Amino acid sequence: MALTGELFIGRRRAATAQRFQAFDPAHGEALMPTFSAAGAAELEAACALADAAFDSYRSLPPQRRAEFLEAIAGQILAQGEDLLKRAHLETALPLARLTGERARTVGQLRLFAEELRAGEWLGLRVDPALPQRPTAPRPDIRLREIPVGPVAVFGASNFPLAFSVAGGDSAAALAAGCPIVVKGHPAHPGTSEYVARAIVAAATETGMPDGVFSLLNGPDTALGAALVTDARIRAVAFTGSRAGGLALMKVAAERPEPIPVYAEMSSINPVVLLPAALAGRGASLAREFVASLTLGVGQFCTNPGLVLALEGEGLRSFIEAAGTALEAVSPAVMLTEGIQRNYVRGIERMSAAGGELVAQGGAGAHTCARAALFSVEAASLAHRPMLAEETFGPASLIVRCRTLAELRGTLERLEGQLTATLQMDAADQPLAQELLATLERKAGRVIVNSWPTGVEVCHAMVHGGPFPATADGRSTSVGTLAIERFLRPVCYQGFADALLPPELRADQLPRWPHRFDGEYRVGRAE
Amino acid sequence: MALTGELFIGRRRAATAQRFQAFDPAHGEALMPTFSAAGAAELEAACALADAAFDSYRSLPPQRRAEFLEAIAGQILAQGEDLLKRAHLETALPLARLTGERARTVGQLRLFAEELRAGEWLGLRVDPALPQRPTAPRPDIRLREIPVGPVAVFGASNFPLAFSVAGGDSAAALAAGCPIVVKGHPAHPGTSEYVARAIVAAATETGMPDGVFSLLNGPDTALGAALVTDARIRAVAFTGSRAGGLALMKVAAERPEPIPVYAEMSSINPVVLLPAALAGRGASLAREFVASLTLGVGQFCTNPGLVLALEGEGLRSFIEAAGTALEAVSPAVMLTEGIQRNYVRGIERMSAAGGELVAQGGAGAHTCARAALFSVEAASLAHRPMLAEETFGPASLIVRCRTLAELRGTLERLEGQLTATLQMDAADQPLAQELLATLERKAGRVIVNSWPTGVEVCHAMVHGGPFPATADGRSTSVGTLAIERFLRPVCYQGFADALLPPELRADQLPRWPHRFDGEYRVGRAE
Repeated sequence: MALTGELFIGRRRAATAQRFQAFDPAHGEALMPTFSAAGAAELEAACALADAAFDSYRSLPPQRRAEFLEAIAGQILAQGEDLLKRAHLETALPLARLTGERARTVGQLRLFAEELRAGEWLGLRVDPALPQRPTAPRPDIRLREIPVGPVAVFGASNFPLAFSVAGGDSAAALAAGCPIVVKGHPAHPGTSEYVARAIVAAATETGMPDGVFSLLNGPDTALGAALVTDARIRAVAFTGSRAGGLALMKVAAERPEPIPVYAEMSSINPVVLLPAALAGRGASLAREFVASLTLGVGQFCTNPGLVLALEGEGLRSFIEAAGTALEAVSPAVMLTEGIQRNYVRGIERMSAAGGELVAQGGAGAHTCARAALFSVEAASLAHRPMLAEETFGPASLIVRCRTLAELRGTLERLEGQLTATLQMDAADQPLAQELLATLERKAGRVIVNSWPTGVEVCHAMVHGGPFPATADGRSTSVGTLAIERFLRPVCYQGFADALLPPELRADQLPRWPHRFDGEYRVGRAE
Repeated sequence: MALTGELFIGRRRAATAQRFQAFDPAHGEALMPTFSAAGAAELEAACALADAAFDSYRSLPPQRRAEFLEAIAGQILAQGEDLLKRAHLETALPLARLTGERARTVGQLRLFAEELRAGEWLGLRVDPALPQRPTAPRPDIRLREIPVGPVAVFGASNFPLAFSVAGGDSAAALAAGCPIVVKGHPAHPGTSEYVARAIVAAATETGMPDGVFSLLNGPDTALGAALVTDARIRAVAFTGSRAGGLALMKVAAERPEPIPVYAEMSSINPVVLLPAALAGRGASLAREFVASLTLGVGQFCTNPGLVLALEGEGLRSFIEAAGTALEAVSPAVMLTEGIQRNYVRGIERMSAAGGELVAQGGAGAHTCARAALFSVEAASLAHRPMLAEETFGPASLIVRCRTLAELRGTLERLEGQLTATLQMDAADQPLAQELLATLERKAGRVIVNSWPTGVEVCHAMVHGGPFPATADGRSTSVGTLAIERFLRPVCYQGFADALLPPELRADQLPRWPHRFDGEYRVGRAE
């Protein structure tokens, strides 16, 4: 079905005079059609609808919201090849990758539907009345989590499906019971439109209140700031650049009523190669490293941008093998011209700051990124912290450490990270044990013997980490735990059964996992 | 044992040349001894010790931290009458109240010890490896919560024991595995010293690392700001004024690395009297209301500062009965001269803003607070929002509403609250149901047929609420859920069993509550 370029204000479509276009980054060409940019009127209408929908949406039984998420998954698949082809045009990501990403997107929605039925997110607790307590009677006290309110979701450029309009943040917020107003990423408005159609169709199919979803597009960052400023928005989910995330954090903190921002921003994902692993399988580690570094043109938050190891023959061989592997990497088109330009600048900055160039990937057209590998002594890195700033794309820095103390010191000086990885063999166990306390303080996910790219969507995943990896290191944006970002606890004291929220009533409570007077009770399956 | 006026830098005592004194608010007299005010050197030393203690303290088995908390409880009781008498001198709170507050403080510490052994706070999740998965093998992925790092705890003036040096925030942070640096409240430094001794004795008794606790005193707010600015501090817990909380939020948000602030600040705790309840038991409601309002000279965060009801004979009788009851209330000394001065100003502000004075409590010495009850039409309140600002002390405003819509509109315009209360009889059920969605959006705790003062310390309690009741409406500062404020999730991917944190290893996992591939498993009691 042809794209119309309209905005989605709840169920209503809206067009504006202010237009913008997507670009095909592979050919530097503007793509048709033109898209409406949202102004103050559209923003106002979307926020008003979201606010009005909140109480009815959050009051639906969890089962109903689960059906909505499953319907979105079905409707996304129903968009068929049109969606994938348009995403390919707008992002230059290969169709195979986009097909995989669509599967992940659909999988995330279904996982949150399951999670809604499982019910841990309800956080139910019951402390029964103690009318005979000697000091003073205790009333009946019950707790559940409720959604925080309408959420602003920002589409990410590097996951046009899995972290965009119906991506992980949207799935988690909708599951929690929060209406969402999505600020679409301006690089893929056509992809966004297909997915928005899917959500609106699913909302209609499952009888959701109008306003549970809106999509605002626009090329200007002022739109996002205005959205975060709106008093009806109660939380923000963002995946993108550090500058973008910091700007939204500032806007949110300066509101008359500050709101939480969950921004996933910046990480260089240190990988430590321990001596036995390096000695035993340095060559294969080098190949795996280059594959992880250049996967998706390095456009992953979990890209391995820093490798640390002890100086020696093992490291010299690794560097040589990695350089050779890197030189064989073909150049590739990045997501947008802006990202490509920033990548080139980042490479120049790394050179200027004293990074010693080990190797470069193949050169191509000017729109293409050339992978780059640098190396530096740890002692030198200590005085050049800018070398440890994220360069988004297929660039990495190998840090040569003279001692384990120097290696640990380098890790300690790093900022917060999404991931930290250990490549180790059995003989490395004592060294690994020594580094672990540092790694878990620095990162949200610690990985042994694989590579940070590839984020499993499951219950135990953490895709988060101390600032500036994320704005709020107490959270994850991937996996079922991500729903907690959009919930807050409410306590019900002295309620008659009939007045309680359904999940806390005597008839429903046993169905859900809960704590009764502190004791754990597994919910009874239906 | 005599007070020395020293600071506690870990196990070390420190004295400085800069001194300050506590005041007996009942007699306006300075109390001996003088106390050392912490400067930059003491702040640096305390933060360095806390940082150094973090890894060893957090690595202790939960059972060891539970023993530490229990030892603190024991050592507080061992301070005996000296502690209570000093607290009485410094706060003018009656000895009976302080004895009760000590019991609550000790109870909180013991409850968190139990909670450490129960283990929900660990948040354990295991997604086992799927080596044969067709798309791609899944590695073993496990999750646990770890503490965020050293926490700055601010002592509150109105709970010199239960929300001060070893109060709820300290208990929650220490339970989570976070060393604490306490900024003592300058109004009760002697009380703080007794409790600090108890903590240090308990730390020695149970072999805790040096630096797990420090106490910094000082009369100047710059000390608190400097503490929150220190890069080694990773979270802040505060109970106090709105201005104080907002100032700390600002400092924390402007750090190079922002940190969470859990500030419990401002609430007027609306109480709705529904018609059947008002008709059936208006006189007893009036007496209960005045008792709740004037309990502890109204110096509770949960003081009922706003009462809403529909106009009519029932409300007129209620107002009359409440006025009569209030006039019989004796004047009482407030916690500090500053609080008393602000209370007097608040009363004047309410008058000036159009609050109609219903009644005042008895008058006393100039250090005493006179309870005050005002009334206003809802329509008038809508144009005078300053009437709905907190006046800390025994003052309240009755809002007369012409219709239920007007009542609900008044509630909708309120800021976030710690509590919202319904006084209702069976016949009020439909009205209560209609108001509930608004109340749970506005407050952290919704109460039926009792009064907001009196906060039960249990599993299902929420003492929190949307801004400005707290800085972070996703949290509670009372009850076992308060531990979550100081935890963040970490994911362990591909770990050999021996390298995993103890709780996630095959031998320990079955002992703790956890989710295995999403399924709930209750921990096996030891």
